[in-house]
Amino acid sequence: MPAEVKSLNEECGVFGVWGDPNAVDITHLGLHTLQHRGQEGAGIVGRTPAGLRRHYGFGLVSQVFAQPADLIALRGPAALGHVRYATAGGAILENIQPLLFRFSDGAVALAHNGNLTNAVSLRAALEQNGAIFQSTSDTEVLMHLLRRSPKKTFKGQLIDALNQVHGGFAFALLTEHGLYAACDPNGFRPLVVGQLPSGGYVICSETAALNVVGAEFIKDVQPGELITVTNAGMTAEQYTTHTQLAVCSMEYIYFARPDSEIHGVNVHQARVAMGKRLAREQPADGDIVVGVPNSGLSAAIGYAQESGIPYEMGLIKSQYVARTFIQPTQALRERSVRLKLSALKAVVNGKRVVLIDDSVVRGTTAKQIVQLLKDAGAKSVHLRIASPPLRFPCFYGIDIQSTKELLAANYSVAAMRQLLGVESLGFLSVAGLEESVNLQTTAPNRGLCVAYFTGKYPTPLDDYAANLKEELSKLTLNVKEVAAR
Amino acid sequence: MPAEVKSLNEECGVFGVWGDPNAVDITHLGLHTLQHRGQEGAGIVGRTPAGLRRHYGFGLVSQVFAQPADLIALRGPAALGHVRYATAGGAILENIQPLLFRFSDGAVALAHNGNLTNAVSLRAALEQNGAIFQSTSDTEVLMHLLRRSPKKTFKGQLIDALNQVHGGFAFALLTEHGLYAACDPNGFRPLVVGQLPSGGYVICSETAALNVVGAEFIKDVQPGELITVTNAGMTAEQYTTHTQLAVCSMEYIYFARPDSEIHGVNVHQARVAMGKRLAREQPADGDIVVGVPNSGLSAAIGYAQESGIPYEMGLIKSQYVARTFIQPTQALRERSVRLKLSALKAVVNGKRVVLIDDSVVRGTTAKQIVQLLKDAGAKSVHLRIASPPLRFPCFYGIDIQSTKELLAANYSVAAMRQLLGVESLGFLSVAGLEESVNLQTTAPNRGLCVAYFTGKYPTPLDDYAANLKEELSKLTLNVKEVAAR
Amino acid sequence: MPAEVKSLNEECGVFGVWGDPNAVDITHLGLHTLQHRGQEGAGIVGRTPAGLRRHYGFGLVSQVFAQPADLIALRGPAALGHVRYATAGGAILENIQPLLFRFSDGAVALAHNGNLTNAVSLRAALEQNGAIFQSTSDTEVLMHLLRRSPKKTFKGQLIDALNQVHGGFAFALLTEHGLYAACDPNGFRPLVVGQLPSGGYVICSETAALNVVGAEFIKDVQPGELITVTNAGMTAEQYTTHTQLAVCSMEYIYFARPDSEIHGVNVHQARVAMGKRLAREQPADGDIVVGVPNSGLSAAIGYAQESGIPYEMGLIKSQYVARTFIQPTQALRERSVRLKLSALKAVVNGKRVVLIDDSVVRGTTAKQIVQLLKDAGAKSVHLRIASPPLRFPCFYGIDIQSTKELLAANYSVAAMRQLLGVESLGFLSVAGLEESVNLQTTAPNRGLCVAYFTGKYPTPLDDYAANLKEELSKLTLNVKEVAAR
Amino acid sequence: MPAEVKSLNEECGVFGVWGDPNAVDITHLGLHTLQHRGQEGAGIVGRTPAGLRRHYGFGLVSQVFAQPADLIALRGPAALGHVRYATAGGAILENIQPLLFRFSDGAVALAHNGNLTNAVSLRAALEQNGAIFQSTSDTEVLMHLLRRSPKKTFKGQLIDALNQVHGGFAFALLTEHGLYAACDPNGFRPLVVGQLPSGGYVICSETAALNVVGAEFIKDVQPGELITVTNAGMTAEQYTTHTQLAVCSMEYIYFARPDSEIHGVNVHQARVAMGKRLAREQPADGDIVVGVPNSGLSAAIGYAQESGIPYEMGLIKSQYVARTFIQPTQALRERSVRLKLSALKAVVNGKRVVLIDDSVVRGTTAKQIVQLLKDAGAKSVHLRIASPPLRFPCFYGIDIQSTKELLAANYSVAAMRQLLGVESLGFLSVAGLEESVNLQTTAPNRGLCVAYFTGKYPTPLDDYAANLKEELSKLTLNVKEVAAR
Repeated sequence: MPAEVKSLNEECGVFGVWGDPNAVDITHLGLHTLQHRGQEGAGIVGRTPAGLRRHYGFGLVSQVFAQPADLIALRGPAALGHVRYATAGGAILENIQPLLFRFSDGAVALAHNGNLTNAVSLRAALEQNGAIFQSTSDTEVLMHLLRRSPKKTFKGQLIDALNQVHGGFAFALLTEHGLYAACDPNGFRPLVVGQLPSGGYVICSETAALNVVGAEFIKDVQPGELITVTNAGMTAEQYTTHTQLAVCSMEYIYFARPDSEIHGVNVHQARVAMGKRLAREQPADGDIVVGVPNSGLSAAIGYAQESGIPYEMGLIKSQYVARTFIQPTQALRERSVRLKLSALKAVVNGKRVVLIDDSVVRGTTAKQIVQLLKDAGAKSVHLRIASPPLRFPCFYGIDIQSTKELLAANYSVAAMRQLLGVESLGFLSVAGLEESVNLQTTAPNRGLCVAYFTGKYPTPLDDYAANLKEELSKLTLNVKEVAAR
Repeated sequence: MPAEVKSLNEECGVFGVWGDPNAVDITHLGLHTLQHRGQEGAGIVGRTPAGLRRHYGFGLVSQVFAQPADLIALRGPAALGHVRYATAGGAILENIQPLLFRFSDGAVALAHNGNLTNAVSLRAALEQNGAIFQSTSDTEVLMHLLRRSPKKTFKGQLIDALNQVHGGFAFALLTEHGLYAACDPNGFRPLVVGQLPSGGYVICSETAALNVVGAEFIKDVQPGELITVTNAGMTAEQYTTHTQLAVCSMEYIYFARPDSEIHGVNVHQARVAMGKRLAREQPADGDIVVGVPNSGLSAAIGYAQESGIPYEMGLIKSQYVARTFIQPTQALRERSVRLKLSALKAVVNGKRVVLIDDSVVRGTTAKQIVQLLKDAGAKSVHLRIASPPLRFPCFYGIDIQSTKELLAANYSVAAMRQLLGVESLGFLSVAGLEESVNLQTTAPNRGLCVAYFTGKYPTPLDDYAANLKEELSKLTLNVKEVAAR
Repeated sequence: MPAEVKSLNEECGVFGVWGDPNAVDITHLGLHTLQHRGQEGAGIVGRTPAGLRRHYGFGLVSQVFAQPADLIALRGPAALGHVRYATAGGAILENIQPLLFRFSDGAVALAHNGNLTNAVSLRAALEQNGAIFQSTSDTEVLMHLLRRSPKKTFKGQLIDALNQVHGGFAFALLTEHGLYAACDPNGFRPLVVGQLPSGGYVICSETAALNVVGAEFIKDVQPGELITVTNAGMTAEQYTTHTQLAVCSMEYIYFARPDSEIHGVNVHQARVAMGKRLAREQPADGDIVVGVPNSGLSAAIGYAQESGIPYEMGLIKSQYVARTFIQPTQALRERSVRLKLSALKAVVNGKRVVLIDDSVVRGTTAKQIVQLLKDAGAKSVHLRIASPPLRFPCFYGIDIQSTKELLAANYSVAAMRQLLGVESLGFLSVAGLEESVNLQTTAPNRGLCVAYFTGKYPTPLDDYAANLKEELSKLTLNVKEVAAR
Repeated sequence: MPAEVKSLNEECGVFGVWGDPNAVDITHLGLHTLQHRGQEGAGIVGRTPAGLRRHYGFGLVSQVFAQPADLIALRGPAALGHVRYATAGGAILENIQPLLFRFSDGAVALAHNGNLTNAVSLRAALEQNGAIFQSTSDTEVLMHLLRRSPKKTFKGQLIDALNQVHGGFAFALLTEHGLYAACDPNGFRPLVVGQLPSGGYVICSETAALNVVGAEFIKDVQPGELITVTNAGMTAEQYTTHTQLAVCSMEYIYFARPDSEIHGVNVHQARVAMGKRLAREQPADGDIVVGVPNSGLSAAIGYAQESGIPYEMGLIKSQYVARTFIQPTQALRERSVRLKLSALKAVVNGKRVVLIDDSVVRGTTAKQIVQLLKDAGAKSVHLRIASPPLRFPCFYGIDIQSTKELLAANYSVAAMRQLLGVESLGFLSVAGLEESVNLQTTAPNRGLCVAYFTGKYPTPLDDYAANLKEELSKLTLNVKEVAAR
């Protein structure tokens, strides 16, 4: 597999509208609301009187849609938008979504959030049969499968294609005739349906976006479900019944907006519950509770309430994006970090700080924050993480691709404590996580995917299986440390 | 006075460095830290081997300095930077600071934060004598006075000029020979001096910027004080002794960063103290305390601690700037507001909310937030403001230019309660404000300027006196309402 | 056929290099030289150490490659570039060439100059078999045919594909292993091979580009010929022997640079010869000969030499591109035209002007120029056109798609004379054109394609045949006028 | 004098309109027409209902005015525009004209073409008296003198100021009340007045711009004349009678457009006459006459007509601006030159070429062109220059600031012939130049300034006198060569 053709499409936001005269402007608002799900690129396809038209580019929604004309050219009664996750390097314009396919018999727009585990082998087989791919992303595989299906209808072809792709996915497709959306058989990635006051329908990644555009929540798209919206209305059907709920727990822990509900559970309240449980599981002897802005704040509120230790604002996040260049000295390079986050000396000086964060990935940021607090005079820092240690990669759409980058995959809790420079370190348990989210289901792990914590993946890993096995085999060399965890 | 020549230079941030090889890059970091003090424009003058060079433009620091080359061209051992407050319309490039004056015998850069009360009359007199102004801002007056002084030295001329301008000001000047800074005789506007590890000096608007660049705090520039930094070191002297401390209280209430200290008082802690005092002065019967992000959060923490009502995250502020265009419908226009701020339904639904904000100016934003909370199911909203009602304009550098725009100048508290749609409304008292900040001084109003609350200005108003008198005379027509306040 | 999928790729310039360390920079110079062949967009694919990389966009070469970094990122020992003809509306980024196809087993870049007559039917058939196109241009058809060929080698697959496409084409392809180029069986479009001082090879549209980059001319690519350049050297072979030379005569008349040679004939000298022949065929009684800058100047020199009437500079073309907006009044709209071209009153006032232009398409420009001359005092204007009347569309790559836009397809010479407002009007004969170019060949029409003058096309018209027949049938309604021509 | 404060404002174009509702759009067209007079920057000040407004920036008119909105914001019944000559380095935005001065009692826009010989001493004296300059250009001096005049009226103050500046100048000023223009007492720089069909007036640098906007020529502004246009109409008066005509001969030779008339003489015809005279003074034994495009073409036509040697197109100038970057090799650097100009091998191969250019400054370009011709096979090149050798700097507005850069100031004709690599070299005589232009006047040198050829300046050189004397004294070291000229 050449370097260029790899999986780049982890985590994204999807927003589509059918049947509202302001579909494009509503999609634009919706993408702004989903901006936290992807900052690398954005695009909208509108169903104009002259057919499907696209505007897209690198950057934030506000950068890609810089002129009113960018939206006006797309206007019509339906639209599909997408925001794309920031990835390091290798970014090519052809990967920005929605992809737009122009056929002699009409056009199709395609947007995706997730990651396919069998994309590489499907692509190789398709190319063997003459297929030409325009992007290097997994997403395009679906369209080739669809176009090669012998079925007579678009929906029939789509169901054929959906049954051939594996992994975590939330697809949305727009044609001249309808808006289509489907979730993988485990429901890894969130996707919801809502209705506008006009009667039009919205399909998008999070309920927060429904709220902002004034749409009423109708339903979460279920595992293995296909939603079809046409001028005849909305229908839901199972394209497969071989399903089992395993919602990505990182959506609750870190990724989704606090004002969203996923499968009936509010994200902020789930985080508050994790913070409370963490206070019981991992108590700390501190003077103040400080959350890492913004993703650690909800859990910090829960921890403070449960522990009785006062909640304080010890860290301040800048509301402006700084554009810094390569600094002439190492000292200035370190200073650049403080543009994003600074410690409130008057608050933390002389205090024993209980620092709450949502998770630890590489540990680099946590280490810098601890240093900030100590520089500001904190007597001690007791780090409490409102999720279990991240030890395994995700292959369903969260950008954790290798154990190499995961601190907890390579070090014991004791070693991590030392590396991060904190007086004590504690994580939430997997059971604590599952009970805090508290999904109403009989599925394993209470309906959550917790594979990054346990290494037990809910599906076969297809193209990734061999690599992971090799990677994990190398990790066992540090067997003593792992045993000590 | 023609429309173009008016006071546009309220509120800004100033950052200068002398004696560090990375002066320009440090200034760039510093301006990022002071970005909250001005978003209309930014500029840096660097002391290059080829003399003073300038890069400046409209927009945020990250927009004006978009390429590494923009900084590289300015590099040298000294620099002066400025961020400018966003003002509606009339913006011309010539007003972006630092202003750079090129003379046959050398160049001078000038940056300013504040507002001069006698600028219009000084300018008219100078023009009468042949002076040509390049900008429409007050700032330039200082340079004309300086250049027309009969004194022999630059510092002598500067002292002459400083003694002729009135109002609130913090000036910084850069020449080939030194960095100079001065505060008005009341110390309305903050200005501090710090020292870098290299031994170089920093002069800037807030201590938060010292922290970010790693400079140690040396001193607040005192009322009537002139700071001189040259290769021979730093000196401080009084250019006038006719002084009396009257720090702008809005800096503590709203404008400065929470991690800054002004005259020895941390801004966040002052706000927490205001919140605590507010809880005693204006108690409320609520289930949760919710602060308006971000400026109301500190006071909300204080209010919650003092009242015992749980602090909750009921409002979420987007961390991305949305660029929205004129919406095609009224419904979408209203939705656009929710891109910035959204209510957390799961938190506020069915609750009696004690909503804490730092201040009320026009009341438009407060009204929208109340509506957001009610739409999300809040049973009642009890609005508590951690500062007294704003009833009078500011002429010392805060952008409140007329009583027309001030809600509290036109309505009683009872009327405001009704207009804002809240169940109860309460403000902090002036005494409560003064005691919360608690400056260690015997000056009137405990060293604060509270003129916008009381109408009692610490200095004569010069060019503004007549206008204000007329404006206030019109307000007395609503005498009954005012009496009822 | 939906509106979007139509032939947009008429006329372009192609420039490729293999085997020179500065391949990318040479290609950049080459594209500048070929800029007259296309101003809509430009692109270069470079063979970098990390594989084929592309930079492309809308606009002139100088706009697309605006930063040194745009080139540096592409550097390596081979490159392929393209400039694209400006077309009205419908322009989408996906059509800018070279197209870059990324396969699991390597990448291929493709650039094209020409038009395929059977592209629409080939595309429909390919889509029927599951092919997905990324652009709406004909060019991409070749790659799908190539990838579906059962042959084992890239060259074998390419030959397969070349034998399936019809029309006028000059293709160039770049892979990691070689640079390939081929001409259609009639050699409609020019394509030449040259060698650099380094030993590397250049394949490009015109010899003028060889001169500018310092490459020595090796050969014109012959009808039905395939050129292969690899590290083993250059080879030429016939992919078909079913060939007959029919070089596009518009290349000599108008399109190519005067300093290029096509099949051994210098373009400027061919135009001078046309001007001389025109002077004999269509003499005029005038005081001065004035050429329309720049494309009519060569013929004007020839006309002046042969007729003995003095050559004069009566029209001046601005060397700066003016950007004008919609003018507020009709008078100003007419003035805008004069920014491009102005008449030299001192030269033409009171004179009988023999005006020489290369061709008449719509007649709009000619009419404006005549008016300019008359406004400047010309006593009379005798228009002489150094080519026959354009009466039929071109389907081999020149952007004349319909008879509707062609003045001479709709009006007799007498009627045109009246419409253009000239005292007399004369065209070169088809025989005169053929003898002026004077190609050394026994092919029909002396090796030229003159179908736009005669309606006799050298190949079947495939997908265009039915449409043309219908169009021409409507024209016969004006049968009397046509008869009078 | 510090490096920054030097004369940068040589050669420019001025265009003003009073009394036409489309003044701004007309000025925009006019500036496009004058683009050859300056490519560094452009600006327009419009008299809007809200006072004078300015849009300006670096680059071509089409770059500075990139959006319709740029013009719309300026619209009103009067406007003043300027294009600025490209100068190497030191360019600062503050120097882009028109300068706009905002006073408490109104605004004034100022545009200038020329150079003041006493600007440095005037500026020093003004600064001594407290004046602050915003630009580093000479132009601003006029405004300071005007504002310090004791006269009561604007026109009185302007006349005061005009009588204090020396050198070559064409000033235009716009206020809310009128449009003013004045020429220096020698009329070095061209300036003309015209009238629009609407009755409005135009004042601009060249008649070509009058033609393009449809204005009728009224008069050349005379030496020492002040033109005043208000709503009451146009008046002309002498602000001084101490005048003597000395039009810059370089305007006829090289700088002005061929379709302009200056003091009644058409520029193209003057060049044709110079070419004819050159043929008589400096005959050559050649096969073809080739002009250097575009400025040498007029003289080449004259030379060909007079000598009977055929005029040919041996050099081709690209109509596209190439943007090239630093080339990786010396060979490529040399190639870049050929993007602008290429030789027509088919024309020059084997020929004895008589090459005609308008002037020789440094000789670099001439040398490259000769090389191009020889590379293309020219048997010999006989260079004929349609002006005398440039040996002295210009201080009246042409960008020849030092003898160092002038080939003819440092080498004899024989030496230059060798350096340029030509078989023979000949220049037009000063008398030949004067008689070819043939101005109807009794002034010395037939009303032309020929100081760059003779070293005899029509006015005292003020601030430049000492420097020139020293420079020339160093040149006498090569006394033998100079003697041999």
